[in-house]
Amino acid sequence: MKNGPDNRPASSPGKNPETGANNGAHPGFFVRLAETEPLKLDSGVELKGIDVAYQVYGELNADKSNAILVCHALTGDHFVAGTHPQTGKPGWWKDIVGPGLTIDTDRYFVICPNILGGCLGSTGPKEINPDTGKPWALDFPVISIADMVRAQKLLIDHLGIETLFAAIGGSMGGMQVLEWAVQFPDKVFAAVPIATAARHSAQNIAFHEVGRQAIMADPDWCNGSYLEQNKNPNRGLAVARMAAHITYLSETALTRKFGRKLQNRDQVTWGFEADFQVESYLRHQGSTFVDRFDANSYLYITRAMDYFDLAERFDGVLANAFLKTPVRFCVISFTSDWLYPTRENREIVHALTGAGANVSFVEIESDKGHDAFLLDEPEFHKVFEGFLEGCAEHRGLRRKS
Amino acid sequence: MKNGPDNRPASSPGKNPETGANNGAHPGFFVRLAETEPLKLDSGVELKGIDVAYQVYGELNADKSNAILVCHALTGDHFVAGTHPQTGKPGWWKDIVGPGLTIDTDRYFVICPNILGGCLGSTGPKEINPDTGKPWALDFPVISIADMVRAQKLLIDHLGIETLFAAIGGSMGGMQVLEWAVQFPDKVFAAVPIATAARHSAQNIAFHEVGRQAIMADPDWCNGSYLEQNKNPNRGLAVARMAAHITYLSETALTRKFGRKLQNRDQVTWGFEADFQVESYLRHQGSTFVDRFDANSYLYITRAMDYFDLAERFDGVLANAFLKTPVRFCVISFTSDWLYPTRENREIVHALTGAGANVSFVEIESDKGHDAFLLDEPEFHKVFEGFLEGCAEHRGLRRKS
Repeated sequence: MKNGPDNRPASSPGKNPETGANNGAHPGFFVRLAETEPLKLDSGVELKGIDVAYQVYGELNADKSNAILVCHALTGDHFVAGTHPQTGKPGWWKDIVGPGLTIDTDRYFVICPNILGGCLGSTGPKEINPDTGKPWALDFPVISIADMVRAQKLLIDHLGIETLFAAIGGSMGGMQVLEWAVQFPDKVFAAVPIATAARHSAQNIAFHEVGRQAIMADPDWCNGSYLEQNKNPNRGLAVARMAAHITYLSETALTRKFGRKLQNRDQVTWGFEADFQVESYLRHQGSTFVDRFDANSYLYITRAMDYFDLAERFDGVLANAFLKTPVRFCVISFTSDWLYPTRENREIVHALTGAGANVSFVEIESDKGHDAFLLDEPEFHKVFEGFLEGCAEHRGLRRKS
Repeated sequence: MKNGPDNRPASSPGKNPETGANNGAHPGFFVRLAETEPLKLDSGVELKGIDVAYQVYGELNADKSNAILVCHALTGDHFVAGTHPQTGKPGWWKDIVGPGLTIDTDRYFVICPNILGGCLGSTGPKEINPDTGKPWALDFPVISIADMVRAQKLLIDHLGIETLFAAIGGSMGGMQVLEWAVQFPDKVFAAVPIATAARHSAQNIAFHEVGRQAIMADPDWCNGSYLEQNKNPNRGLAVARMAAHITYLSETALTRKFGRKLQNRDQVTWGFEADFQVESYLRHQGSTFVDRFDANSYLYITRAMDYFDLAERFDGVLANAFLKTPVRFCVISFTSDWLYPTRENREIVHALTGAGANVSFVEIESDKGHDAFLLDEPEFHKVFEGFLEGCAEHRGLRRKS
């Protein structure tokens, strides 16, 4: 398979051209799965007929051993590289995924699905509930990180890939990576959970709850059925995004970037305009977010993260989740990340070590906060690439020339 | 003057019984100031006829040398001790202010005014604008921390007190304390700024902006004129409070107090109820706050804090604010306070040292976050009391028996 000039695949990667084709409503590839056998969710609900939107980069090799699954974070999507067809901006991991980059699309076949519950083509609260012909809204079942991974597994099966070379992701993407390793230890050769945690902390649940309350406080949320009523809780969703965005940056980064600098003025206005650059920046983050994200999806995805506690089904002992795992792990954290601090990443490492797993751990010195995993951080890229190269060698894949 | 059984003064502390009497609309004492000479605000606006609600505890000695001004924080009020007349709960500094306590009302005369811009009796956006006969709302001028202190100075003058024995406060109260020392260095013997900063950081401005946007996003805010329209932006104000409340606690305190414990249930509900205790706690913080606080006051006070940068009028050199100051300082910070971290408190200490001031500095080991200054922290109380006792001796006041 060849990529087109904008790095989007020129043809379907799946065996079945019908199901792998672009569809009209959503950009990227698209497939309907679990049509005969429903997907059993952690909540007990069974979901039949799941749409998964996804994007691929690079070429799958003959023995299908070079596939890398990239799992996106809370507000990410499947356009990890190239140009985003809706925003016109580069993909969210442009510095990592591409020809010659850390995740080298000249050698790896990269698959990035929009998560179950998402809002860019995969089944989620904004899509049509086939039973009613109306958007799911709050009738959509609450999902878990494990459910997202189950849907991804169906996609990987559909693509005819037996074993992933690697599952990789940061933040909530890292949670999915951990779930892959736990649910399907024989289906993933290497796992790279980045800036993440094995369970969501009280503080993180608290920040999510603020975001949800902001959305639900907006009268235009209409108890979730805003789409049907031709409304949109944009104000609430923007506030949710603003609050969350602060947690993605470090205090140092905010001070370095903005400090107390004023926005296009010499002195304060003695009013409630965005006098400070940091206010203007946050407002911009809020107002652009609502153009690309669905409020109910935000509720569902944050909830899935809150519910995430990998040790829970192993009697609270995280090491038991990884006993005898053959997966090679590389856990990466960032010094200034206070959302998923090194301490929480280290808990994963301790559990893996306790379980006798093959694990590398690196804490990257960075003052860019949680978002460091998305940014141009040479040391991070170097460590990450080193791990992948080593795994490629063990896996018998072509190394970087 | 004697206190009544509920620790509220039984008679007016001022020279003028008319202006010092309780008024019907607001609990506590009350005085109208700046009636002939208007108060010049930093914005350039002149405010004529300022109401200041306040509370006093203990007795003023004969030479009026034992007065302590306690400055409250963003959402505090003048009921620092005793029983709050509106909520029925103990005053916000019950562990610090009272007979035999750190701020010993058996020996000190404690004055706590509701700040200018507040909402419990002092002139602020919810009070009546005499020019229109309607609530000020957004016609109220935007004020600064320095303006709050100017109004307090009028009160102290009114009470016939030449020099305060001490000005004391935490968080925004600490900002007022610093302003007192800078504006009126000869009118305050000792200053205790606690868990505060000499300027508001980008991150703190960002969190305030989220709160303001949450309020202003609520349609019931009505562009500020909700009182006139018999509405109240309770949902927005609750979200603002929830977001702010997270910043008052440490991650450790949240984990210790709540962790991932569920609220009155054995398992999650797979929905958007408050499954987790931390969610329930936050929602409670939001919903009780709206009963006691005014949304516009929240906007004005957070704005005053954002605008606070003590070094600004000294060409950016903080030490110059304190040159030759005769005030004795004790700066106190808490290890787990990430809203006003030790680093920012230390900047005050460095400036004071650079200015040749008499300064003590203590960082208290605590995992309770910013709110530690309000809580029962024995080491904090001990250090604080030690400093006050030393100052009392220098001032020739009665020491603790």
